[in-house]
Parts: sequence; structure tokens; C-alpha cells
Amino acid sequence: MKRRDLLRMIGVSAGGAAMYQAMSTLGLAAESPYRGTPKLQGAPHGASVLILGAGLAGMVAAYELRQAGYKVQVLEYNARPGGRNWTIRGDDTYTELGGYTQHCQFDRGLYINPGPWRIPYHHRGLLDYCKKLGVPLEPFVQINHNAYLHNTKAFGGKPQRYRSINADYRGHITELLAKVTQQSKLDALVSKDDQAMLLDSLRQLGGLDKNYAYVTGPSASNRRGYDKPPGGGLSAKPVDSQPLQLHDVLNSNMWRALTEGEMFEFQQTLFQPVGGMGRIGEAFGRSLDGLIHYNAKVTAIHQDEHGVTATYEDSRRPGSVRKAHGDWCICTIPLSILSQIPMNVGAAMADAIGAIPYAATVKIGLQFKRRFWEEDDDIYGGITSTDLPINNISYPSCDFNSRGKGVLLGGYLWGLSAYEFTAMTPEERVRRAVEYGSQIHPQYKTEFDNGVAVSWHRAPFTMGCFATWSEEARAKHYENLCQIDGRIALAGEHASYLPAWQEGAVTSALDVVTRIHQRVVAGGVA
Amino acid sequence: MKRRDLLRMIGVSAGGAAMYQAMSTLGLAAESPYRGTPKLQGAPHGASVLILGAGLAGMVAAYELRQAGYKVQVLEYNARPGGRNWTIRGDDTYTELGGYTQHCQFDRGLYINPGPWRIPYHHRGLLDYCKKLGVPLEPFVQINHNAYLHNTKAFGGKPQRYRSINADYRGHITELLAKVTQQSKLDALVSKDDQAMLLDSLRQLGGLDKNYAYVTGPSASNRRGYDKPPGGGLSAKPVDSQPLQLHDVLNSNMWRALTEGEMFEFQQTLFQPVGGMGRIGEAFGRSLDGLIHYNAKVTAIHQDEHGVTATYEDSRRPGSVRKAHGDWCICTIPLSILSQIPMNVGAAMADAIGAIPYAATVKIGLQFKRRFWEEDDDIYGGITSTDLPINNISYPSCDFNSRGKGVLLGGYLWGLSAYEFTAMTPEERVRRAVEYGSQIHPQYKTEFDNGVAVSWHRAPFTMGCFATWSEEARAKHYENLCQIDGRIALAGEHASYLPAWQEGAVTSALDVVTRIHQRVVAGGVA
Repeated sequence: MKRRDLLRMIGVSAGGAAMYQAMSTLGLAAESPYRGTPKLQGAPHGASVLILGAGLAGMVAAYELRQAGYKVQVLEYNARPGGRNWTIRGDDTYTELGGYTQHCQFDRGLYINPGPWRIPYHHRGLLDYCKKLGVPLEPFVQINHNAYLHNTKAFGGKPQRYRSINADYRGHITELLAKVTQQSKLDALVSKDDQAMLLDSLRQLGGLDKNYAYVTGPSASNRRGYDKPPGGGLSAKPVDSQPLQLHDVLNSNMWRALTEGEMFEFQQTLFQPVGGMGRIGEAFGRSLDGLIHYNAKVTAIHQDEHGVTATYEDSRRPGSVRKAHGDWCICTIPLSILSQIPMNVGAAMADAIGAIPYAATVKIGLQFKRRFWEEDDDIYGGITSTDLPINNISYPSCDFNSRGKGVLLGGYLWGLSAYEFTAMTPEERVRRAVEYGSQIHPQYKTEFDNGVAVSWHRAPFTMGCFATWSEEARAKHYENLCQIDGRIALAGEHASYLPAWQEGAVTSALDVVTRIHQRVVAGGVA
Repeated sequence: MKRRDLLRMIGVSAGGAAMYQAMSTLGLAAESPYRGTPKLQGAPHGASVLILGAGLAGMVAAYELRQAGYKVQVLEYNARPGGRNWTIRGDDTYTELGGYTQHCQFDRGLYINPGPWRIPYHHRGLLDYCKKLGVPLEPFVQINHNAYLHNTKAFGGKPQRYRSINADYRGHITELLAKVTQQSKLDALVSKDDQAMLLDSLRQLGGLDKNYAYVTGPSASNRRGYDKPPGGGLSAKPVDSQPLQLHDVLNSNMWRALTEGEMFEFQQTLFQPVGGMGRIGEAFGRSLDGLIHYNAKVTAIHQDEHGVTATYEDSRRPGSVRKAHGDWCICTIPLSILSQIPMNVGAAMADAIGAIPYAATVKIGLQFKRRFWEEDDDIYGGITSTDLPINNISYPSCDFNSRGKGVLLGGYLWGLSAYEFTAMTPEERVRRAVEYGSQIHPQYKTEFDNGVAVSWHRAPFTMGCFATWSEEARAKHYENLCQIDGRIALAGEHASYLPAWQEGAVTSALDVVTRIHQRVVAGGVA
């Protein structure tokens, strides 16, 4: 019996707390709260669930409830499954609020993910569905030591390699700590034995020389890079590079980008589906063939003691009123939209729905005539950080070292600059991204081909990118948002401690279907 | 005109020094000493070069010299191209010195690379040939935050996650440096303004709290991992984990593994060819179709003023003496073998050939019935480090999240333990690797399927893994090894500042063909 099967058995028979105890005992607790899909069974004959939204949360709910024996139907605003799980490819058309329509001109095989674009190794729920649905994955390169750090106010605006700033920052701080250790200034804090090991470890971490100094030499070059790296034959001897001063590194603010790859959600190994994140939504959609009504814009949700009715119209034919009914309803509509739809739930849930603002973000995909970032700059995947409004340039984590065109993420904007870009036409957003990016990659000017820009505040199906929870809102509203209100329950990244992440949507849906099923089975009736 | 074309032009017309100046000016110098393939042309009619060895160095030389118009032939000991560029797949057979024959039982699509297994982003020569030969690449995962660090003498032998040791080590050292900064003990070393930025940066690097302490809390958990990570719905609240003490981290010696991904050759992004490293050698072999004589064991090399003659026998028919001739000879035979072959070169080169010992390494590939490292342990690619003789367990960087069997690198041995394993039968090496590995992954015992083990000291075509240059040997012998001696020149990783790396072989070959061509053209005759 696999450990996971054992856990599932404990979970089914003794509940979550016992499961968690068992997980701790087996040493799995630190890995994931995800316990495998819930394996619900024994839905009463004819029991039905109406699901609103065919994003990941809605489709996970539909997948599991259908398996448990429920009659399931899903209403979806868009003409496609996935919601924010979405890939824009050549020939795709997208119309945003305000009426601007973009017709993507990317070459075949090239794409941009306007929404989620990476999957951490510990997002087991999502990874398990990828396995079940047969969606192949490839690594997403988050940290690239050869990508740039760029600050218009440092080093005359000249981009620096991540590896240099990283090595120099570490070199200097380990040198400082080694100095005070040798000057006996740590004696009150660290035992003498530990100080000896500490010095050893600092030398290694920082690339210090035998005197614990961070200086020009092979040890520093082996971290920050060479002026001339080692090669073969005659005149192949390496030439060391010159470290920057601590003051310049600190003052550049570039150190702020150095820990991104250390945060739990961005640690190695990260993944992306081969061919675009949208492959997951597309596969889910195929697996739920016939259950999803597309182009269905929900305009009202009403429950009574017998069930829940959603009123909707065909989004292509405004005014065409239709109704759908379920004994229960799982509503995954983003709060930004849901707060505008009449729905008779209690004050606690209604307050929660209205209290959570959504993040404004903008993503811009740019196609170039050649992969100059690889050919000229030796940058294969990863992210360049800048203080320009575009924030990031992210290089594609696929088709490495190939010939031909390429699409990169030419901007990932949030905060004020996202609002500014949202106010522009898509064409203007693309133009600005090219203009800004050319400060880092002068090749932009000659190699730019075409682009698309998605501003999430103008996306008709979300009007925002993801729920932004303050600590106060979390304390006041989260539990209320997640309760089953009569026959209605909410699911989605907004109903999770993982806002913006697909795993939040997946685990929230699994949590909700399990609770609804428990209630149905306990009640003995639908 | 691309920058690289400009550089090539400068290189051709004005030589390497001018090229390097130009590279510096263009900001390319730090990237690579590789200047693109040399684009040799104008070989005198009928001029010929005999190449010994169809490893990467020999095949690069053949590829470029053929292009320049030379008559080229290559003698190769093995029945396949590639040399140490080699992938063992199911159904492959390998006989080592001593007579042991292994018949690999891996399933279709699974493999192990006994030799090189990763390509750094800055190994431009090799990357360029991959592009030219149409060899697709995928990322090689070097650092995996969720892989294990294991020391039999620490934490009761219980493996720790890389992320925990990494976070705790950084947390504690940044806390220490923050403390002495706040106690004014850095005043003599760092200005007050810089100290303020330093404190900010230390908090970020270490995940310190607002008082610059490394304590249990969201900031530490977001780096070292959670006891219960955030999820969705009710009871989804994360539970923080408890950092280890500095003494325990230092004493565990596990910090020694924390900087591997920071070294120049192991920085992101690393690559592997899709389907195994041997894909490069195989593609080279196809591109040189008809030029390579396989199963040709060179027994003597003789030069006179007119050219070079190699005596060889068909390795399948000992005693079958044959001869091959070239105006020039590029010999890529490993020094471990070459030092045993009679060859009339000067004392300086002969001394160099005899002076360089070869590393003993052993690699062991293990097939398991399921990918338990992914399914149970959430480890996708990357390397677990241990103080056991196996040193490493490296998980495959392909077929992530897939069902079915998998092959991992169950041991990469060097030094004393490599010699010990070399003395064993292949079966015994595999048995030991399974036994040791099961201390880290108990699943080994039930899931093991079959394995292969390559001890490089028993490889008939190399008798060792790679040239190990001491600083003294480098100073005394390197230049002599790389000179053209009469009509003979050497190439290979041993003739480079990149021992063990394929890029050393590639750049050494490019260096040699350029010099030989210059000499031929300058001499006006072959």
C-alpha cells in the first residue's frame, strides 16, 4: 500500500485531523496539505450540483462531483474552458472591456500566458490533475544567473548580470561576518568551536580567499563570472573579473532581486505545461465534454430550501434569459464580478464578497524576429528585473537554442504602472513595453515583430487579476467566505490562502466538494 | 550585421587579441572566449589531416577541417561515435576491462549518461554545435530545493530538505551580522548609510523578522517550508515550521552542499540533450558519415617531414595491422591511453603526456518500478547529496510527473570509494548503490528493478574519466602539451582549462584546427 493510499483511507474514515496526525507521523506533513483527490462516492440518486465558472476551481469541482455520482452542469462566461488558465496563441482574438480587440499575430507554436505561468513542485493538487489529464510538463526557469538586473539609477543604467551582483553581495557580507568573527566580536553569541565551522562555511558561501577576503581571483570569478572564461588549447587561460564594492552593490538596490528563487513558491523545481498553461484548462474542458455551457453570463443567483437557480444569458445574445438549477451550487465567479450579481446569501458571506479588492496587473507578450537574448546575450529562460514600469522581462522556458522567432514576456506590471497601462490602448501598451525594454536589450528596436497586451482590470470575465487579502480582511472575512451558505458555497483562488495561484483554486474546490458531499450524505437527501 | 559576425570578421582579419579587444568593447568578453566556429577556408588542394579519436574533440576537428577543404579521416576505437559523450539505453551492451559485460535492461526511453550529463549556458561552442546538428535541449535541474541533504552523522541519519538547511544557514548568519551591525561593531568597516541598507538587505536575504531575528514565523517558513503549507477553503491556514539551531546546521556539515548551484559551471540555466547526452555524439557521427573508421585501435603513431602515419588494428580482429596517413595529425586519444602508444614527438610533449593522472569515477544507473521520488517525496530532478560512498542521487530531469518506471543516477563516485567500486563486479556495484541509497529512500528496497554501473578506470577507450591537472603540472606541462609538435597536435578536454567538460574538448579542437590551418596556409604547402 502506498503512503498516499493509507492517508486517503485514514482521511475517509477518521477525518482531516487524524489524517494530519498520520501525515506528520509519516513525515509528509511538511510536503503538502493536499491529500490526493477526495475519492467521493455514494451521491444520492439524482442529486445535482450547479457550478458557476469553468476555471480550474469549477472544473475540479465538476470532475470530482461527477465521479461521485452527482448530476453536474457548469455555466461559463467565456467560449472556452480555463478562465485565467489561459494561453494566447497566433490567430487568437481577444476583446477587452472598452471594446479593443486584439488579433494575435504570433507564429505557430509561440504563445504567452496572460495569467498563471508557473507551477511550484509542491502544488500537488494541480500536478496530480496534470498527470490524470495527461498534460506534459517542462521546467520553468525562474532564476537565471546570466539574466540581468537593471536599475536606471545604478551603474549608469547599464544592466548587470545576476551572477555578479549575487556573488558580490554574498562575498562582501560573508567577509564582514568573517572579520568580526576573527576580531572576537561574536564570542558572546557563538562558541569557539562553532566559530571555526562558521568561518569555513563563510569562505565557501562567499567565495572568500584563504584570508577570508573577497577579492579578485579564481574563487570570486568562479561565482561572479570571468572577464575571459577558461577555454581550450593555447591562450585559453581564464582572466579573472573585478568584484564591485559593497557600497555600489547596496546602493544599486539590485540585491532586492536576489532572493526570489528562495521563496517557497519560486523554489526549484518549477514547471510549465508544454505548449502553454492553457493546456490544463483545455484538457479539463475536454474531460468534461458536454457538461459545460459556454457563453453563459450569470446575471442572478437565487437559493431556497430546495436548491439554487442561476439566471443567465447567452453572452452573444444579450437579453436571452435562461435558467439553470441544482440542488446545490458551487460558485467560482471571481468576487470582483460576483459582488455585482444579485445572490441571496447571508450578510456574513455578502460582506466578505464585497470586501476583497482585486489586483491590477498587465502582461505583455512580444514576438521578435530572432531569439537575440539567447544568441547575443546567452540568456536562456529566467527573468530580468528592472525598475522600469515593465518590472520584468521573462525569457521563454522552451525551444531553447532553437532557430527562428521567439516570444518573451515583455512586461509584467502591477500597482500604479498597471493602472497607467490599463488606461492605454493595447497597441500603446505594446509600444511602451518595446520602448522600455530597449533600454535593456537594444536589439528590441530592430528585432521587434508584434505583440499582445492583457490588462486584467479590462478582462470581462474577471475585472482584475486575483483577490488581494489584507491581514485584517483575512481575519474578518475569510471563514465567512468559505462557509456553506444554505445551498451555496464559493470556491476559487479567492477562497484560499494561496491567492493568485492555481493551487489555491484546486485545493479550495476540493475542500468545498468534500464538505458539500459530507453534508449531503449526512442529510440523507439531496 | 550581428555582433558575432562582426567579431568573426575582426578575428579572421586581425587575430585573437584584436578580437578580444573588440569583444570587451561590445561587452561580450565576460560571456565566452568562444568566437563562433572558425570558418576556415582555402585548404591547399589535396591537403589531408588524420584525426585519432571520434569523441567530441576529434569530430569537431573533422567537421571544421572538412568544411575548410581538407581530406579528413578519423580512426575510432569504439564501434560508435562520441567517446565519453555516451548514453546507455535499454538493450545496449558494454564490456569493460576485466571482461565483465553488462546488458542494459532499462525500459524503452530510459537511459543513463555515464560521462558528461549537463551543459552550462556559457558553453557556447557545444551549444552552437547542438544547434547546427539539430540536437534539441531541455533544462537540467541542478539545484532542487526539495531534494535531500544527508549525513549519516547528523540528525540521526535522517535526510533534511535542501530548502530547510539553506534557509536556516542564511537566517542565522544574517541574524549574526545584523546583530553586530546594530551593536556598532561594523562602524570601522561600513558607513552608517550603508549599514542601514545592509540591515534591509540582510532581513531579506535571511528571512529575518522586523527585529532582525531569525525565528519561527511566516518569513522563515516562506523559505524553509511549512509544517503545513497554505491551501484552500476552511482549515487551509498554514502552520509554520521550526528552524534548526545554528550549531546543528554547522555541525551537520550539510552547508557544504549549499553553494553548488552558485559555481560558474553549475549556475542556471543548465541543459541536457533530449534523450541523453549521447545524442550529440550520434548526430556528429551521422554528419561525418563515411569519414570515421570504427573499431580502429591505434597502436603506433609516427611522423616524418612529409606527414603522419598511424598504425592500427581492427579491435575485433587483434593482429590485423593497418595504416592510415595524413599530412597532419590531430590526436585526441586520452593521455591515459596515449601515454602507452609509441609516438615520436619531442621530449616536452612526451613528458606532458605522461605527467597527467586521470580521475577515477564510477556512475551507476538504477531503474525503479515507479518514480517514487516524485510520487512520494515531491522531488523532481536535482541532486541529493550524502556522505555515503555514492555521494549523490540524481533524479531524472525529464518525463516529469509521468507514470511508469524511471531511471535515476544512483551513485557518482570519485576518489577512494570510486577505486573500491572499480574493484567490484558491476552487479556488486549496483547492489551496493541500492543498499546505500535505501538509507535515504526506503522505497529502493521494494521498487528496484535493474541497474548498470560504469567504472571509468575500466573503460577500455579511456582508462579513466578525465585529466586531473595540478597547479604545478599546469605550469610545467600545459603549454608543451598544446604546441604543435612537427605535424602532430593534441586536442581534447585534457588540452584545456576545462577538464572533464565537453566544452574543453570543443574549444581545444577549435584552437588546434585554427593553428594548424594557419601553419598550412603560411607554409603554402600541405
